Amino acid sequence: MTYPFLGGLRVIESSAFVAAPLAGLTLAQYGADVIRVDMIGGGIDYGRMPRLPGGRSFYWTALNKGKRSVAVDLRKPEGRELVQALATAPGPDGGVLLTNIGTPWLAHGVLAAKRPDVITCTIEGNGDGSTALDYTVNCATGYPAITGGGSVQRPVNHVLPAWDMACAYQAAFAIVAAAQQRQRTGAGAELRLALSDVAFTMLSHLGVLAEAELLQQNRPSLGNDLYGAFGRDFGTADGGRIMVAAISANQWKALVQACGIADGIAALEQRLGLDFGDEAQRYEARDEIAALVEPWFAARTRAQAEAELAEHKVCWGRYNTVTELVAADARVSQANPVFERIATPGIGTHLAAGATVRAANLPRQPTPPAPLLGTHTDEVLHEVLGLASGAVGRLHDAGVVAGPERDPSVRG
Amino acid sequence: MTYPFLGGLRVIESSAFVAAPLAGLTLAQYGADVIRVDMIGGGIDYGRMPRLPGGRSFYWTALNKGKRSVAVDLRKPEGRELVQALATAPGPDGGVLLTNIGTPWLAHGVLAAKRPDVITCTIEGNGDGSTALDYTVNCATGYPAITGGGSVQRPVNHVLPAWDMACAYQAAFAIVAAAQQRQRTGAGAELRLALSDVAFTMLSHLGVLAEAELLQQNRPSLGNDLYGAFGRDFGTADGGRIMVAAISANQWKALVQACGIADGIAALEQRLGLDFGDEAQRYEARDEIAALVEPWFAARTRAQAEAELAEHKVCWGRYNTVTELVAADARVSQANPVFERIATPGIGTHLAAGATVRAANLPRQPTPPAPLLGTHTDEVLHEVLGLASGAVGRLHDAGVVAGPERDPSVRG
Repeated sequence: MTYPFLGGLRVIESSAFVAAPLAGLTLAQYGADVIRVDMIGGGIDYGRMPRLPGGRSFYWTALNKGKRSVAVDLRKPEGRELVQALATAPGPDGGVLLTNIGTPWLAHGVLAAKRPDVITCTIEGNGDGSTALDYTVNCATGYPAITGGGSVQRPVNHVLPAWDMACAYQAAFAIVAAAQQRQRTGAGAELRLALSDVAFTMLSHLGVLAEAELLQQNRPSLGNDLYGAFGRDFGTADGGRIMVAAISANQWKALVQACGIADGIAALEQRLGLDFGDEAQRYEARDEIAALVEPWFAARTRAQAEAELAEHKVCWGRYNTVTELVAADARVSQANPVFERIATPGIGTHLAAGATVRAANLPRQPTPPAPLLGTHTDEVLHEVLGLASGAVGRLHDAGVVAGPERDPSVRG
Repeated sequence: MTYPFLGGLRVIESSAFVAAPLAGLTLAQYGADVIRVDMIGGGIDYGRMPRLPGGRSFYWTALNKGKRSVAVDLRKPEGRELVQALATAPGPDGGVLLTNIGTPWLAHGVLAAKRPDVITCTIEGNGDGSTALDYTVNCATGYPAITGGGSVQRPVNHVLPAWDMACAYQAAFAIVAAAQQRQRTGAGAELRLALSDVAFTMLSHLGVLAEAELLQQNRPSLGNDLYGAFGRDFGTADGGRIMVAAISANQWKALVQACGIADGIAALEQRLGLDFGDEAQRYEARDEIAALVEPWFAARTRAQAEAELAEHKVCWGRYNTVTELVAADARVSQANPVFERIATPGIGTHLAAGATVRAANLPRQPTPPAPLLGTHTDEVLHEVLGLASGAVGRLHDAGVVAGPERDPSVRG
């Protein structure tokens, strides 16, 4: 479901893959009118896995919920002019371009010549314009080198496209901040955001960079252990796995109580000369503490352990696969207001997320599913550019634009 | 360095750990006046690891760059009233609270009674208000189950606090979107954002949730292999490791050319009856393709391989530790405009990141380092609440507020 925060701010999105589409999705969920412009037949990401066998991409349809779709032949000069016109159409709500494609004919200068207060946000791989992906940035951050913690020292990649995700939200934020400034001062903005900068600046924000520079020190590879306090995963008698975390004093007390290990912990503190009221000292003795916690989990089924952990308000979580999560966790269901069921053409009816934020007392609108490619071509050309049906028809005849593609799930 | 986009929007931050402090940092870097209010002596995260031996926390000082610090005794009614007054002080730029602590005396209703158009953004663990941390949410997402790809099926946690990071940027975005709406309509907003919702909604946005629900299918555990196209890490003759990715057609062609394996690839396509022009078919044959690529890396030093990959414009990245990154990657240096050197009291002079976005033709201001706790107590009480020095002095005498703590690096 979406919120009307952004009051119809119109954003033209020319994009592929994760970062820019997710930024556009975020803007759409807060009430922006996001118009994704694609090559007729679909861009480079249109069929990306995972997809329905013989059908549409789960990936593309997930990232393009709540947007309007315009299909244009981007190789034709007339097609390019149309996209430029959409991005620079007059009115206080228009004049915003979001892209991670970076074609020269959508460069800021080109658009600013048509609309001086245009806001463009260009997502790049590296700041010098060279290519980088989440995978080729992540390896450089040092995180794979300390993930997994196995005895064989091979780096382990994350699977979540974490940097794309962060880049997307920063891009959405930057666009809204620039729109706010334009409202106040009338000035447009040329924004550039590099995926590698998103990652490397995060190293600074988490203190990892200063630690490395000033102490010549890298964080050790800890497996599933938490850094700087106590936390780890434990196996239950029936093969379940549960993560527990004790960062705050209350979380620590709750864990000790739930596991009934107060005496053992006190003896351990005395033996080691440590005070586990201090999180750093819990971290120091993490292996010894874990040895006291382990038997408690090993003696219980997952369900038993979870019930007792919940009763004592321990901070814990269950390891799931996604199918297990969807089947059993109420947080991923319509019982949670951030989820709803939507019917995506060519995909079917499924659970989908709207805006993550919950805003009290504000109307929450259903999230429209991702459209079939070109669904809104005519409507957008008419509404935004004021083209009459004759003119739109001529563009169709010349192959410059295309209307909605066929729904692959409809036989006929 | 910071940008003036938000024109002095004043945000009162009552926070700990990553999500809310990083949201505040993001707002500060775009020109908000972020005032972090802490318990005298520091909150629960004030000494968090990593830290300088005998000195300040790299973690806390990294996350609180560019903010002002006010130290208040939050247990005293007068202290709480001061924080409420700061969060509801009049003026169009004020009236924003960011918190992940969720104390009842900072609840939206309490503040809205003093200032009806107040915007509050409360970050929670779960949507029902119960506790969750990045660790206890991440285990539920299914990602640890498919990370690492080893033969032993044990889940592998990520090390990057990815969900905290995403939550932070969403919170910053939501606050600016709500501020934009308030400017337009005069209405405040009560925003709640749950860490677990950030994670689970992302599963929807990446298509993983619909795939699991409709196909009862989980992504396989692929180790460092890329899903849906071709990409993997390779070892060089001198023990280096390099990640390569070939998602787009151009990236694929570049890799084949750089490695000089066009003939082998053509023969493989024929043998398997596949077309590697299609990314999904490259994914299908990833092991066979990797077997052709592997000898090329094994025959070269890392430096040789990197030079040839760069020459052919392959999409690649080097695996680093953070110390290696800081020592050798120009993207993490003052040559990159998103980085600067700052002098943090109690820490020293070090490389630090400003706003990640680069905005052409906009003044970029140096990022002030994280302050010593309480550095801005008097200044803020005077500026925002209009308290005269006598009144401020009485608050000090009564132990309700405190001024700047001693810089631990200064001997005296």
